[in-house]
Amino acid sequence: MILELADIRIKPGENAAFEKAIAQGVETVIREAKGFEGYKVNRSIESPDRYLLQIFWTTLEDHTVGFRQSEAFGRWRAIVGPFFAGPPHVEHFELVCKSA
Amino acid sequence: MILELADIRIKPGENAAFEKAIAQGVETVIREAKGFEGYKVNRSIESPDRYLLQIFWTTLEDHTVGFRQSEAFGRWRAIVGPFFAGPPHVEHFELVCKSA
Repeated sequence: MILELADIRIKPGENAAFEKAIAQGVETVIREAKGFEGYKVNRSIESPDRYLLQIFWTTLEDHTVGFRQSEAFGRWRAIVGPFFAGPPHVEHFELVCKSA
Repeated sequence: MILELADIRIKPGENAAFEKAIAQGVETVIREAKGFEGYKVNRSIESPDRYLLQIFWTTLEDHTVGFRQSEAFGRWRAIVGPFFAGPPHVEHFELVCKSA
């Protein structure tokens, strides 16, 4: 399993609307993608305009090829993109270890 | 529950030793701290010297006061600090939503 981490900054003051939009975008668009295994959204305490979107994919290509190159990616960005203060930083991670 | 995210860059080529050290440091030092609820370590695929350490705490103060101001913090840093390429960026997050 692969973790996609999108580090997002939104326009100030739009937290409530963004939080509704990102949940809706994941639940209605990304959830349907092949290899989607789950997600989590966190808001920073020190920087309330910063969000982390974690998406768990079966393989790296399920995200970078399967989802990114599908028409669904455009639908997703139409939902959340208007809130972005700039392009999100996206990086992928492997699990090293975790608590039992 | 609060998420502490430590964004860590290590010196190149020390991945195996660092991964052993960070697991040992969490399991032997941080696990004993009041309010510790779990952890996860991820390694970046695009930037293999970059690691994310996620620690789940009951409250923000369990980390910022209880752990950070205890002698245990020094023991933790003695285990993992030698691998750091620079000071880690540490930020705290609240959960907004996640998959069921």
